[in-house]
Amino acid sequence: MARPKTLFWQDHALMLLDQRKLPLEVTYLRCETVETVAEAITELAVRGAPAIGAAAGYGIVLAAQNSNEERIREDLQKAGELLASTRPTAVNLFWAIERMLKVAEETEGFADIKQRLLAEAHLIMQEDVAANKKIGDYGAELLPPGARVMTICNAGALATADYGTALGVIRSYGKEIKVYACETRPVLQGSRLTTWELLADGFDVTLITDNMAATVMAQGMVDAVIAGADRIATNGDTANKIGTYALAILAQYHNLPFYIAAPSSTIDPQLAAGTEIVIEERNAKEVTFVGGTQIAPATVKVYNPAFDVTPARLISAIITEKGVFRFPYRGKLVK
Amino acid sequence: MARPKTLFWQDHALMLLDQRKLPLEVTYLRCETVETVAEAITELAVRGAPAIGAAAGYGIVLAAQNSNEERIREDLQKAGELLASTRPTAVNLFWAIERMLKVAEETEGFADIKQRLLAEAHLIMQEDVAANKKIGDYGAELLPPGARVMTICNAGALATADYGTALGVIRSYGKEIKVYACETRPVLQGSRLTTWELLADGFDVTLITDNMAATVMAQGMVDAVIAGADRIATNGDTANKIGTYALAILAQYHNLPFYIAAPSSTIDPQLAAGTEIVIEERNAKEVTFVGGTQIAPATVKVYNPAFDVTPARLISAIITEKGVFRFPYRGKLVK
Repeated sequence: MARPKTLFWQDHALMLLDQRKLPLEVTYLRCETVETVAEAITELAVRGAPAIGAAAGYGIVLAAQNSNEERIREDLQKAGELLASTRPTAVNLFWAIERMLKVAEETEGFADIKQRLLAEAHLIMQEDVAANKKIGDYGAELLPPGARVMTICNAGALATADYGTALGVIRSYGKEIKVYACETRPVLQGSRLTTWELLADGFDVTLITDNMAATVMAQGMVDAVIAGADRIATNGDTANKIGTYALAILAQYHNLPFYIAAPSSTIDPQLAAGTEIVIEERNAKEVTFVGGTQIAPATVKVYNPAFDVTPARLISAIITEKGVFRFPYRGKLVK
Repeated sequence: MARPKTLFWQDHALMLLDQRKLPLEVTYLRCETVETVAEAITELAVRGAPAIGAAAGYGIVLAAQNSNEERIREDLQKAGELLASTRPTAVNLFWAIERMLKVAEETEGFADIKQRLLAEAHLIMQEDVAANKKIGDYGAELLPPGARVMTICNAGALATADYGTALGVIRSYGKEIKVYACETRPVLQGSRLTTWELLADGFDVTLITDNMAATVMAQGMVDAVIAGADRIATNGDTANKIGTYALAILAQYHNLPFYIAAPSSTIDPQLAAGTEIVIEERNAKEVTFVGGTQIAPATVKVYNPAFDVTPARLISAIITEKGVFRFPYRGKLVK
C-alpha cells in the first residue's frame, strides 16, 4: 500500500488525513469551509508546522470559494484572522496566511482572486516538497555511514506537504539508516505518526518512550539527533515540540550532534531570540487521558506546554533548503 | 479518607494494594501463596524496591505456612528462588529473601520457623518505615525555604512499607512544598501513583510529562530533583526507574541539585560500579498500549529498558537512614 497523502485538494475541498486516528485508522476529513480547516488545525487533525501552513493556504481558498464579489476582501481578512487564532507557536501558519492574503490584495476581480489563490496554495505545497527534498539531501550528507539517528515528534511527510524535514533527511539518506523514534508525550506524534510513516515506507524504526533517550545515547546506539522546528529566531533559538530542548542537552552531554531540519519559512525574521516565542499551553486532558483511558487523578494540576525553546548554542546545525548553517547563526539565517 | 496501606498482613495472608488499578480503583489482592506474591511482583501489582522487599518477606512466610515439617527447608529454598526470579534490578528483593532465609536457617522446629519468619517480615516493614522517616528528615534539611522539587516514578508510601523515600523527604518537609511529578512512561507510576498519594495526603502536586522536565527546570520552577533507587553500587552509581539518568543530566545542566533517597538496603555491597547492574527489559506492550488503547503500529520494534543507571558524579547526595553522603561515594556507603 502506498502511504496515504497528508493533505490534498479534491473537488473544491481540502482533504486532510485525520492524524488523530493514526495509526489505527486511515480516514480523511473533507473540509469545505475555512471554519472546518481552522478546527482541524486546533484539534490536531492536521499538525506539523509546514502542513499547518499548507492547510491554511487552502483554508483561504475555501473562504474565497464561499464568498462573493461584494464580501471577498472582508471574508479573506476574517479567514486569515480565524486561521491565525488556531495555534500560536508555528510561524509557517502566519507566513502562509500573509502570503495568500498578499496574492489576493494584488489581484482584481472575484474569479481571478479565486483562481490565483488556488494556484498559490498549490504552489505552497509544491515548494514545500521541493524544499524538503533539498533539506533531506543537505542533511543526509552530515550523517556517517551506517547512520543511526534519534528523532522526536513527527517532522515527516505527515507534518509537511510531503517528504518531511527531519524524516526527509532520513528518506534522503536511504533505507540502511536506523531510526529511534521518541514517542513524544502527550500527543504521541512519535509513536502514532513517525513510526507509522517510516514503517509504511520500509524504514527500520524502533520506538522508545521519551525518558529512554538518554540511555539510548549512553549505550552508543545513535550517532545524531534530528528534529523539526515550529519557529526559528534569527539568532537560531528554535521552538519545537516539547522535549526537543531536553534532547539537545542530552545530545551535548553525550557528544552527539543535534540538528534542526526546517524550511526557511520556519525562520521568523521579526524574532531576535527564542525568549520572545509564544508557547502554546494545551488542555490538561492531553496529559491525564490516553484515548479513553484516564491515567491520573481527575483533580491533579497539570502543566502542558506544547513546545519548548532550544537555545542556538545547543544546535550543531540548522538545515534548510538554502543550505546548512552553523552556530553562531546571527546574520546567516535571514538575508 | 485515610490513604490506603500499600501492603499488610491479615488473617494469614498478605494484602497488596493493587497498584495496576490506581488511581481509578482501590482494590486489594489477597495473597495466600508465595506464587501469588511472585506473580504480583512480576505484574507490578506491587512495585518499588523497598515494597518489593517487604512483599517478598511475607512471600517467604506464606511458603512456610503452606509447607510442613518435612518439606520446610526445601520449600523455603524454592520460594526464595521463585521470588528472586521475578525482577532482576532492585536489590532490596534479594536482600529481603536472604535475610528471611537466614532467620529460617538459624531456627529449629517447624512452628518456631513459621513464627520467627512472620516476626522478621513484620520487622522488615517496621524498619523500612523507620528508615524512611530518617531519610525524610535528613533530606528535608537539604531543601531551601519554600522548596519546589521534581520527582520521577513513585518513590513514595506506595513504593515502600510506608512514608516513602523521595516522597518521604517531601512528607518530612511539610505541606508548603510544591512537587512536580514526572508521569514516568511507560508504566506511568508518576501520574498514576505519585500524584494519587500526594493528593491523598494534601500536597500541592503538578503533573508533567517526562519530556517537560527540562522546560520546568529552565523556567526556574524547581529547586531540586529527588528520586528513589533500585540498586546503588558502592561507588554511588544508581539504578532507578528509566528517565532518572536524563533528569540527573538535565539537573546538572540547570545547576540544580539531584538527590537520591533510599534505605541502606538498596546499596549492593557486592557491586563496585553501576555498569554491572542487570537492567530489566520489559514487554513492548507497556510502550505500545495504554490501558486498552493501542498507541503505535502493531509491528513496530520497541526498546523498553525499565531502569537506567545514573553515574555517581551526577548525584549531588545520596540520602539514607544513616545520613547524607556526597560524591565521591567510594568507602562511605558500605561500612
